[in-house]
Amino acid sequence: MSQPEIIAQLKDIIVEGKVLTDAESLSFYGKDWTKVFTPAPLAIVFPRSIPEVQALVRFANKHKVQLVASGGRTGLSGGAVAAAGEVVVAFDYMNSIKDFNPIDRTVVCEPGVITEQLQTFAEEHELFYPVDFASAGSSQIGGNISTNAGGIKVIRYGMTRDWVAGLKVVTGTGELLSLNKDLVKNNTGYDLRQLYIGGEGTLGFVVEATMKLVRPPKDLTVLLLGVPDMSSIMNVLNSFQQKIDLTAFEFFSEKALQKVVAKGDVQRPFETQVDYYALLEFECLNEQLAEQAMEVFELCLEQGWVMDGVMSQSLTQLQNLWRCREDISETIAEWTPYKNDISVIVSKVPAFLAEVERVVSEHYPDFEIIWFGHIGDGNIHLNILKPEQLDQESFIEKCHHVSQWVFEIVEKYQGSVSAEHGVGLLKKDFLQYTRSPVEIEYMKAIKRIFDPNNIMNPGKLVDM
Amino acid sequence: MSQPEIIAQLKDIIVEGKVLTDAESLSFYGKDWTKVFTPAPLAIVFPRSIPEVQALVRFANKHKVQLVASGGRTGLSGGAVAAAGEVVVAFDYMNSIKDFNPIDRTVVCEPGVITEQLQTFAEEHELFYPVDFASAGSSQIGGNISTNAGGIKVIRYGMTRDWVAGLKVVTGTGELLSLNKDLVKNNTGYDLRQLYIGGEGTLGFVVEATMKLVRPPKDLTVLLLGVPDMSSIMNVLNSFQQKIDLTAFEFFSEKALQKVVAKGDVQRPFETQVDYYALLEFECLNEQLAEQAMEVFELCLEQGWVMDGVMSQSLTQLQNLWRCREDISETIAEWTPYKNDISVIVSKVPAFLAEVERVVSEHYPDFEIIWFGHIGDGNIHLNILKPEQLDQESFIEKCHHVSQWVFEIVEKYQGSVSAEHGVGLLKKDFLQYTRSPVEIEYMKAIKRIFDPNNIMNPGKLVDM
Repeated sequence: MSQPEIIAQLKDIIVEGKVLTDAESLSFYGKDWTKVFTPAPLAIVFPRSIPEVQALVRFANKHKVQLVASGGRTGLSGGAVAAAGEVVVAFDYMNSIKDFNPIDRTVVCEPGVITEQLQTFAEEHELFYPVDFASAGSSQIGGNISTNAGGIKVIRYGMTRDWVAGLKVVTGTGELLSLNKDLVKNNTGYDLRQLYIGGEGTLGFVVEATMKLVRPPKDLTVLLLGVPDMSSIMNVLNSFQQKIDLTAFEFFSEKALQKVVAKGDVQRPFETQVDYYALLEFECLNEQLAEQAMEVFELCLEQGWVMDGVMSQSLTQLQNLWRCREDISETIAEWTPYKNDISVIVSKVPAFLAEVERVVSEHYPDFEIIWFGHIGDGNIHLNILKPEQLDQESFIEKCHHVSQWVFEIVEKYQGSVSAEHGVGLLKKDFLQYTRSPVEIEYMKAIKRIFDPNNIMNPGKLVDM
Repeated sequence: MSQPEIIAQLKDIIVEGKVLTDAESLSFYGKDWTKVFTPAPLAIVFPRSIPEVQALVRFANKHKVQLVASGGRTGLSGGAVAAAGEVVVAFDYMNSIKDFNPIDRTVVCEPGVITEQLQTFAEEHELFYPVDFASAGSSQIGGNISTNAGGIKVIRYGMTRDWVAGLKVVTGTGELLSLNKDLVKNNTGYDLRQLYIGGEGTLGFVVEATMKLVRPPKDLTVLLLGVPDMSSIMNVLNSFQQKIDLTAFEFFSEKALQKVVAKGDVQRPFETQVDYYALLEFECLNEQLAEQAMEVFELCLEQGWVMDGVMSQSLTQLQNLWRCREDISETIAEWTPYKNDISVIVSKVPAFLAEVERVVSEHYPDFEIIWFGHIGDGNIHLNILKPEQLDQESFIEKCHHVSQWVFEIVEKYQGSVSAEHGVGLLKKDFLQYTRSPVEIEYMKAIKRIFDPNNIMNPGKLVDM
């Protein structure tokens, strides 16, 4: 079928929604936050209902038209990029909250519901949707599920996977599956819902999701601690976890803090300069807990695991302390940093970081490494700033080597080449550093079951 | 290959472990806690290492020898029954805790580790393994994972699924997969670990599992409340959940309590007789929380949702209150009750219960129905006592009709025909009341990937 014929057919199928083919839309909807791929979709379609999605997929399956799901396109692995004449299926018009059940504490969402929209809806009902991250203002629930989004509260609340009570999906042949029916307990065979969570749209489309909510956290309090080295951070984590349920445990380096402070919007939390900082958050439900936190803090001081620290006394102070951590990504953006989102088990973080640092600085002593991340769950963000004198092209080339070394170290430490951003196009060639060849073959076999004609986000995650 | 030849070969493969073929062992290891199937395995093998398991599966795959995984065999759906000349693979000798990581708070278990063994190990390290149920003293971790065991703390801690950091499995072709490598964050494609959790041994064997631990609960307190009707129970649940994180929310009927009290070991919690009872448990971390609980209790009294109640003041009293709920199953065993383990979403429980009661009592007015279960997660245990004058055979026949009606109501309410005990042999014919025909076809296709010769627990869950 010729391209004009496909577009004509799409307009017949997407009657309630719309179909766009102008250059601006193709460019806008054809890419995510990764900037290294050139968008080149054939068309953008905006379905408005599940039957429209099913009709679209049946048509695409029959004529081998490739489809790419598009949510908020805030991904960083090219999972939502359409660079090969695909039809982008944007869920922007399927963005309603369809139902709310206060006893089950569940919300039925169309896939285009924005994360923040769900968070706000929860707040209005005195509940809480706990998966939170920098792009919550534009990422969509369908995309969050397809990438199993994580973020800053994983240590307490887990990943998106933990908040999906039920899913409706359209498979690569256009079949509609209602998975798990929002049940808490349902042991009736393979939990197919789990394959679609984190499936990166390669098995079909998420067309509806029932998300769980929870009691909002109360009296959140932040402790920001200056820590001399990574192994002390582990001791700090361990000491606090024995006494207190943490809602966050983040870390960043002095170099990261310097950049943020230099920008002028955020003040140093305290005068002492230390190599690393740990940011702990917990619900300070009563005075006893505050006292316990202070006791652990003092123990950490005595042991030399902490050099200095501050505890938030107000919401404003809490927000300011959080900015030390949250402003890093935006602050260092001007150095067009090389970024890598990796993980190992928590206890291996110190050794892993040291080895990456050693290898990178051995080869490229002029590279400035900025570490930060969600250390409470083993997820660290490696950022390398481009040295001023180095041109962009040479920097990218050198960083290709860095990736190779980093992924080899990831493999050695049995870590993950993608902690929370998924595989997409960007990390597809490095998948074997985390998943064995046999596992990858099983993944391909599963893809063939749900998407026999390889029309759902082809070329992402694995090559068929 | 003849049966004697198979047995001879098994003895060659299982060199470190052992092979049993005596009648007593065949009978003992060929069944689980369901009593309706007659065990008839060919042999029982006890491997001692992962390579032995792999060699066994490769042999079985080549010669189409059917294998049934055996854990503690405490299941109630016939998932571990060997009634058709299968070789039972018992993991009793692979029962070591191999590693403990205090920072990651993880324990590496062989599949034969007993649930209680893990719980005790956790306690010894001032940690907590929160999946708990009546059979914890004999059920094994491998079996817990394969059935995604639930229990009495699901409302707070979730199912076994939530506590598996990593899995080693041997597929139906003898391949060893290391799934998820114990990582908290790992978004590198389809999470195959999830298929083996609750897979009932039909995709292969769990041969090692890294289980997560958590901070032990502190100062647990129980509230036992007399509640006039099911919709009041929902209001009670909702009122408490807004203020307090519950660790359990169980219910039982006055009829259930009467049986337990009549046995003489347990006293009535209070004099008032009410149709239903709710048992709430929470961490009473401080006086403020105790006051909040009392406030909600008083609100419930005022609203007429609660008629009477008692709060535990000591560990002994807590244990006694729990016995009102936990002794039910054993107490009613003498009536050889018909049992069904079903679930719906929490808010639908009252209507669902009423409809089941109505249908059953319409047809069999002499049947005594005993309800109890984990109402906080929608999981209810239906028990029907055999009327004294009715012979066992007629009772079983009539209960077949009951099952049919119950499952039709389950389907109408979009519930689960097996909330926590799995499908096995017992509920295989009723799977379509919860899973659609298309879903069941996808499940079969997945089974064919991991077990192409249908040697792993064949005939359980689905017929191939």
